[in-house]
Amino acid sequence: MIQKTTIWKVSTVLLGIGLVSVLMYGCPSQTEMLDTGDAAQRVYVAPGEYDEYYAFLSGGYSGQLSVWGLPSGRMFRNIPVFSQDPESGYGYSEETKPLLMTSYGFIPWDDSHHPELSLTNSMPDGRWMFINANNTPRVARIDLTSFETVETLELPNTGGNHASTFATENTEYIIGATRFSIPYDMDMDVPIDTYSENFDGSLSFIGVDDETGEMSMDFQILMPPYHYDLGRAGKGPSADWVFFTTYNTEEAHTLLEINASEFDKDYIVAVNWKMAEEYVREGRAETVPAEYYHNMKDENTSVAVSNVHDEVLLLDPRDAPDMIYFLPTPKSPHGVDIDPTGEYIVGGGKLATVIPVHSFSRMLDAIDNDAFEEIINGIPVLEYESTIVGEVENPGLGPLHTEFDGDGHAYTSVYISSEIVKWSLETFEVVDRIDSYYSIGHLMITGGDTPNPDKRYMLGLTKTSRDRFLPTGPKQLHPAQLYDISGDRMEMLLDFPTIGEPHYAQAIPADQIRDNVKQIYDLDANNHPHAVKRTADARVERDGDVVRVYMTNIRSHFTPDNIEGIRVGDEVHFHLTNIEQDWDMVHGFAIKGSNSAEVLIAPGETKTIVWHPQRTGIFPFYCTAFCSALHQEMQGYVRVSPADTDVPLTWRTGED
Amino acid sequence: MIQKTTIWKVSTVLLGIGLVSVLMYGCPSQTEMLDTGDAAQRVYVAPGEYDEYYAFLSGGYSGQLSVWGLPSGRMFRNIPVFSQDPESGYGYSEETKPLLMTSYGFIPWDDSHHPELSLTNSMPDGRWMFINANNTPRVARIDLTSFETVETLELPNTGGNHASTFATENTEYIIGATRFSIPYDMDMDVPIDTYSENFDGSLSFIGVDDETGEMSMDFQILMPPYHYDLGRAGKGPSADWVFFTTYNTEEAHTLLEINASEFDKDYIVAVNWKMAEEYVREGRAETVPAEYYHNMKDENTSVAVSNVHDEVLLLDPRDAPDMIYFLPTPKSPHGVDIDPTGEYIVGGGKLATVIPVHSFSRMLDAIDNDAFEEIINGIPVLEYESTIVGEVENPGLGPLHTEFDGDGHAYTSVYISSEIVKWSLETFEVVDRIDSYYSIGHLMITGGDTPNPDKRYMLGLTKTSRDRFLPTGPKQLHPAQLYDISGDRMEMLLDFPTIGEPHYAQAIPADQIRDNVKQIYDLDANNHPHAVKRTADARVERDGDVVRVYMTNIRSHFTPDNIEGIRVGDEVHFHLTNIEQDWDMVHGFAIKGSNSAEVLIAPGETKTIVWHPQRTGIFPFYCTAFCSALHQEMQGYVRVSPADTDVPLTWRTGED
Repeated sequence: MIQKTTIWKVSTVLLGIGLVSVLMYGCPSQTEMLDTGDAAQRVYVAPGEYDEYYAFLSGGYSGQLSVWGLPSGRMFRNIPVFSQDPESGYGYSEETKPLLMTSYGFIPWDDSHHPELSLTNSMPDGRWMFINANNTPRVARIDLTSFETVETLELPNTGGNHASTFATENTEYIIGATRFSIPYDMDMDVPIDTYSENFDGSLSFIGVDDETGEMSMDFQILMPPYHYDLGRAGKGPSADWVFFTTYNTEEAHTLLEINASEFDKDYIVAVNWKMAEEYVREGRAETVPAEYYHNMKDENTSVAVSNVHDEVLLLDPRDAPDMIYFLPTPKSPHGVDIDPTGEYIVGGGKLATVIPVHSFSRMLDAIDNDAFEEIINGIPVLEYESTIVGEVENPGLGPLHTEFDGDGHAYTSVYISSEIVKWSLETFEVVDRIDSYYSIGHLMITGGDTPNPDKRYMLGLTKTSRDRFLPTGPKQLHPAQLYDISGDRMEMLLDFPTIGEPHYAQAIPADQIRDNVKQIYDLDANNHPHAVKRTADARVERDGDVVRVYMTNIRSHFTPDNIEGIRVGDEVHFHLTNIEQDWDMVHGFAIKGSNSAEVLIAPGETKTIVWHPQRTGIFPFYCTAFCSALHQEMQGYVRVSPADTDVPLTWRTGED
Repeated sequence: MIQKTTIWKVSTVLLGIGLVSVLMYGCPSQTEMLDTGDAAQRVYVAPGEYDEYYAFLSGGYSGQLSVWGLPSGRMFRNIPVFSQDPESGYGYSEETKPLLMTSYGFIPWDDSHHPELSLTNSMPDGRWMFINANNTPRVARIDLTSFETVETLELPNTGGNHASTFATENTEYIIGATRFSIPYDMDMDVPIDTYSENFDGSLSFIGVDDETGEMSMDFQILMPPYHYDLGRAGKGPSADWVFFTTYNTEEAHTLLEINASEFDKDYIVAVNWKMAEEYVREGRAETVPAEYYHNMKDENTSVAVSNVHDEVLLLDPRDAPDMIYFLPTPKSPHGVDIDPTGEYIVGGGKLATVIPVHSFSRMLDAIDNDAFEEIINGIPVLEYESTIVGEVENPGLGPLHTEFDGDGHAYTSVYISSEIVKWSLETFEVVDRIDSYYSIGHLMITGGDTPNPDKRYMLGLTKTSRDRFLPTGPKQLHPAQLYDISGDRMEMLLDFPTIGEPHYAQAIPADQIRDNVKQIYDLDANNHPHAVKRTADARVERDGDVVRVYMTNIRSHFTPDNIEGIRVGDEVHFHLTNIEQDWDMVHGFAIKGSNSAEVLIAPGETKTIVWHPQRTGIFPFYCTAFCSALHQEMQGYVRVSPADTDVPLTWRTGED
């Protein structure tokens, strides 16, 4: 029996480090009631009042980014990023389909993990949010004035992009990395068991234009065929560096749960990105073939456009000395997190019995002293003892991620034993612990990854809800728990389901964003090539089999509202312009039997869907967003005739 | 200027009935703070405790059905029904794609409006939930043990299906209706301005098997070309009847906001469905051509199968006397709601200055007395005075929907003036009113549409959030407000954003469903034709260009995890069986560059996605749902070679 053998092997590996329960949830089986004191008052935001924080939660397997309020735990928006969204027409409308184009063609889905606010002096500046696609490696940018995805950039020659998106001090770069090593030439057809010989890792440095936010694939670094798991930029003294965790330094390609868990230590990778940038400037990077898409929404037209690139700059550490180092770290580390001072580099060894803490200043000393164990592909491996300054004992089973309160403490999520441990950055001793329900992954403290954390709230992102809420079948939503960390002890305030599977979150004080948020798109500035801004300009045009309907939407009317002369086999483009200029005054459009989705059109915006009528008849269309007292009357009809009809193309605007 | 003319005409029409503000929101422009007293405590559900009610909110333009807890206002699940869901693979996986098939082909999106719990003696029995698709007319059934969509049925010869789904006393029928009249023969190619001559309405009666829940299109009734807006079944004395509202009795086909608002009264349609059923049994219905799809999940295999039908039974009221009547009702009525006793039929005349209340017993008397104004297409129009028993004065501007507390009061949502009015079923006088923020559509009282309401909570579903929450751009989510109605006065407790645009909701006490909910799918009962229940049976098979990967998922391994010999141009079916049998132990599957979505596979389930590899290379796949401490290691590789490769098909199971 293969399965039994597998389980036995896994157990053997894990037994050695005391994690016999790794195949189980490792969580309490019964619900425990909490003494929640005045928690109700502390999370309640009365009707008409505002939450203190915007929290941005990644969608995980939804591919999206959701926006929540803290402390209320209410979702304000689910922004489509890497997956189609039938509701808004994202990934169906002509304006948004290019955002999902890749070198593999149109991709309807991805897995978004780590949202990152743009930074100025390592503090969120509230301009943009970045998030990664893990499956077909990409990075997206979301504009925080419109809360819309405006750009996606594919990472070439990368297998998974998990250690992403994390920003350097002033968002000079967003980082990415190969999660599952593949041959760096991604079209290479080689046997999988030539892994060590032919497979590679890579780290990506995506430049961000400081004015416009526009991204560019600036350079990559060639790495050994390990798996690169998470990343973080340094801050303060370590601001010129970025850090990644690795696992599978065993270079396994099958049965990873056993074969990639053999070594006692893997690595944290430290990269001096300033030095890498300098090497690239000096011309030490090689230009290599690399097909990838860069898709961006045109600011004036709101139409996304795809550009295909065919090469990238690749830096080999063998040609770029003193730029990159391995810090041995126990065992299969997952998270890597940098404390507010920039001095401590905390690993989350998911199979480790301690939380290892490296010192940045000791790392620099070790480099100066050439305290190297060995050199791998041009990358020196520092001696473990030379960089480590603490190992937090008794951290629970499966420490993963750490954030900070700016008050001398770190908080680490512990997956298998389902708890959060709070420990001292002075003594490296655990000072508090609290149950998390259940199987916590990431955690987030308000500002907890910045130089200046706000010791206020902590959000735990747990992996199963089971009996925490009313049951809804074999698959339940993943919950989040809100904790108050302002006192000496952590207190759980609230338990609420999220959507998708949030892997990480960031929060920003509401005041920092709120006043910049757009309420409308300016109709005057709408330069969409198919916009019509006055009902008098509404019309229908035929060019061969392509019919374009230039249609306005305003309470409570579509112009035109009756269209005849459409033929079976036509390709009908509905170009819909919402000519309202009031906040939240959205119209929607759908036509019976449409083989595309609907579209929602925000005030001032133009959106297009294409319809291929396949049979004759009268097809009603209507406004899908309840817009006014006469919303039901906001409808019209299209007549579809046979392909060889002589019914002329006509339309009714309301004047005739 | 067309637009100005339109606005002027609309204004003229509306001025006459005092609704000059109809084109505006009609809602307060500034946020008002509420004295919420101990509301915080009353809505707070502490971690580990349960909500009192399941609430089911339609998704509106999301096409889905969301499940919430009351009083906490937390969402527990968003069930995909009529739209693709990239996250779960619904509408992308081979098992679920047939659920979105229609006579127009595959439809990726629809607009779901009115959820209806199955009824026994007019009370929710917690077995199934039904919901309508408004754009491409359909009805779906959701199983409340799995919270999954298990069936969709298309309504032939129907233009929009808005007045749906509502169930008769023992769920004998689910009703549907044409919202936008079209020629009954839906392929008919006629000029739109032959509306009165060629267009028709229809009412649909969808049978429901009492044992299995399986739906069938039992018969339709041919109606004049009006727009049929909402419906309700009677109860108690009126249980043999169903009621629909109409508007556009003017038979307009253009500029409906003016032309369909001319008459002072439209109708409520009263249909004796028992008598209709009897007429059908007697053979008075005509068999007419009608292409429509009926799609259903096979209980054993969980694979949905589509069946195409080509005819339907049509009853013409001219051939079916005494079965159907028109009750004149002011003005463009929207909602029609029946009080708990079954005696009062309340219209929601959206342009009316009163809330009209008809009496069922007086209606029967009027029928006995032939108190008819005229007869239209075989349908007698009763005299207004003969059925009306009350007109609630001063109801605010734009009354829409009414529910009941079982304690002698009705609660009506009022759209334009953004309020809820509570009025007496004895005096027909308003006794309380409360602001709703903003532009309320439907409202729901716990059990408020049943013979036995629970005078506990009321949910208002409002149409814009604007300044109620932290802003997130030109388009905001639609909020719900929770009210306590247990006392004499309505009290607002909570304001929370929803998802999609909920048009209606129903709630059921949690205890009635909770214990029936499945925690897993029984692996032994899984008869999916491509299931593999033991890793020893995992394998890969080629048949021409079709490759089938029979793969098992269990923490933390895919079997097989290395596959070679796949060729560019192949059609690769990944048949994934989750062999776990623990609650909520979900695995996901995705492969780099996949042109389909991912799939999530619940414990015991088999799901299939198809991949068309378009270029050579090594393609990582991985588990997309964080399942275990070694989740990151749950991955594998597929090698894709050129179409003419001689690389043999091989795979690695972990034994070799």
